[in-house]
Amino acid sequence: MKINQARNLIIKTFKNYKLSNKHSSICADALINAELVGAPSHGFARIISYCNRIKKKVINPKPKIKIKKISSSITQIDANNAVGFIGANLGINHAIQNAKKTGIGFVAVKNSGHYGLSGYYAERAAKKGLVAFCFTNAPPAIAPHGAKKTLFGTNPVCFATPTGSKVPFVLDTSISMINRGKIRRAAKLGGKIPLGVALDKNGNPTTDPKKALKGLQLPIAGFRGSGLAWMVDILSGVLTGGNHGGKVKDPFDDFSGPQNIGHLFIVFKPNLFVKDYTKRIKENIRRIKKLPKLKKFKKIYYPGENKSERFRSNLKKEINIPQSILSEINLLNKS
Amino acid sequence: MKINQARNLIIKTFKNYKLSNKHSSICADALINAELVGAPSHGFARIISYCNRIKKKVINPKPKIKIKKISSSITQIDANNAVGFIGANLGINHAIQNAKKTGIGFVAVKNSGHYGLSGYYAERAAKKGLVAFCFTNAPPAIAPHGAKKTLFGTNPVCFATPTGSKVPFVLDTSISMINRGKIRRAAKLGGKIPLGVALDKNGNPTTDPKKALKGLQLPIAGFRGSGLAWMVDILSGVLTGGNHGGKVKDPFDDFSGPQNIGHLFIVFKPNLFVKDYTKRIKENIRRIKKLPKLKKFKKIYYPGENKSERFRSNLKKEINIPQSILSEINLLNKS
Repeated sequence: MKINQARNLIIKTFKNYKLSNKHSSICADALINAELVGAPSHGFARIISYCNRIKKKVINPKPKIKIKKISSSITQIDANNAVGFIGANLGINHAIQNAKKTGIGFVAVKNSGHYGLSGYYAERAAKKGLVAFCFTNAPPAIAPHGAKKTLFGTNPVCFATPTGSKVPFVLDTSISMINRGKIRRAAKLGGKIPLGVALDKNGNPTTDPKKALKGLQLPIAGFRGSGLAWMVDILSGVLTGGNHGGKVKDPFDDFSGPQNIGHLFIVFKPNLFVKDYTKRIKENIRRIKKLPKLKKFKKIYYPGENKSERFRSNLKKEINIPQSILSEINLLNKS
Repeated sequence: MKINQARNLIIKTFKNYKLSNKHSSICADALINAELVGAPSHGFARIISYCNRIKKKVINPKPKIKIKKISSSITQIDANNAVGFIGANLGINHAIQNAKKTGIGFVAVKNSGHYGLSGYYAERAAKKGLVAFCFTNAPPAIAPHGAKKTLFGTNPVCFATPTGSKVPFVLDTSISMINRGKIRRAAKLGGKIPLGVALDKNGNPTTDPKKALKGLQLPIAGFRGSGLAWMVDILSGVLTGGNHGGKVKDPFDDFSGPQNIGHLFIVFKPNLFVKDYTKRIKENIRRIKKLPKLKKFKKIYYPGENKSERFRSNLKKEINIPQSILSEINLLNKS
């Protein structure tokens, strides 16, 4: 499907589910971006869940969002159970505004939902010349170190900075060995997942995505990954007023209430302490890129660079939406 | 050696190397803390390097430290090549002060040196009821993803929060599979390192700490760990005005100039967005601790809890300083 056509389909769908024109556009931009950066698990595959949640009244299509200015740097947003993209969009915009004014923007969002890719928001700050952290939590997927039950989400650590080139440095690294969306998509399309990234509910290794969804995803690096996921749960849940400690509901399966996901955005100016940040970061990247490479590597990429190459290449192509997903979306628009 | 006796030995040694009484005490507190939390690689074993660097005039024992207030939240410190503990101590103190005043403290330190354990500083903020990130870089130890040469330090991600109990949550996780200090200590004491944590200079796995020191340490989780180490290098080096991109000198071997390590401290109040942070974090920890456990685990620990247990237990014991290290320190005090 052509990109613009795909975008219009998303807007039409969300408008059918009572979102405003503006909010439908914000959702469409985030979902199209996910498809273009090569993360289809965060693209069209998600629309069904958002619409189902609106239908079951656990996402509010007409949110009354409250924005509370705590100081010139600090803002709190209550997203009133809007689709995650809406609260997150406001969150990063306020963090950017505050950072431009005072040097630092520190913004918490609560009563939000799944906001897609963290890197999407961090990149926007970086493209405006700012450094950013974005944190969000997610439904249980990873077992804390020592536990045989999942509790943490895949809780990414996300950081971006301008690089002096068109392509910002955007680290958006899940703490899970595999992206939960990838497992879900494999389950939907009947594929398999690699061995060693997940366990079934009995704690045995599995390549069956359906068994993995009922079981545990493995964290990176044992207690280190577990600790990072815990940190993200505290920052995005405990601190913001969002759900935390395993209470974020699964957006696909659990309609017993809103997700109340929290997001935290920390944005700051890169030139607070040095006058020549752009020169310095360019030099940093240059030194790393010119290192001797391992045999199978032609090039050393900085985080986000690869994704940006995919984005530019995909911009010239049509978006490939699996027929099963397209049929469900068409059904959504008829019901 | 009794703790107080060990402390006095450190103070005496640093005073012999021209540090003031106050600065010697700050160094002693950090080094004793490292011994007590069970990180001897960051304790007595380091004194020799600090003194040698003072002797070779690449650490300044009488620094003229400049503190520049950029806003009520933001402070910049030029540590004038002091021992790392001195600049870091000022850095975390200013970050705490700023956070208490405005909600956020954002402090960069440049022209500093190896500051010991990040968790030591983050814990101090947490014990004053604040949330903290601490970042510092280090000499090359880890190869960026795709490179066959080391460039990043072991660059820990460090985060702490109060927990409502006496023991704060302190995540201080190196991005390396093994702490460089542990390899160095094994080399000094003639021990071995586990297989799979480091490669020799030809890229082959090794258990010989001396070969590992000349080779590469492996990052956790491939490109994810490499990206996190890169992020820490940017935050503590590029942003602060410190050295970065592989230019931090080895404190043990390279006396060609000061290290100019940078540190970044981000400290904030936990109750900016919620009134009941203490209740919330307690509930968060309670939910995780009560999860069913894997067979070999009696208890689920939060980051820092284990270390705190070791600290309390070690407080009742003498500090075990290897004779080889003690002899070198005695020699330092005679020369």
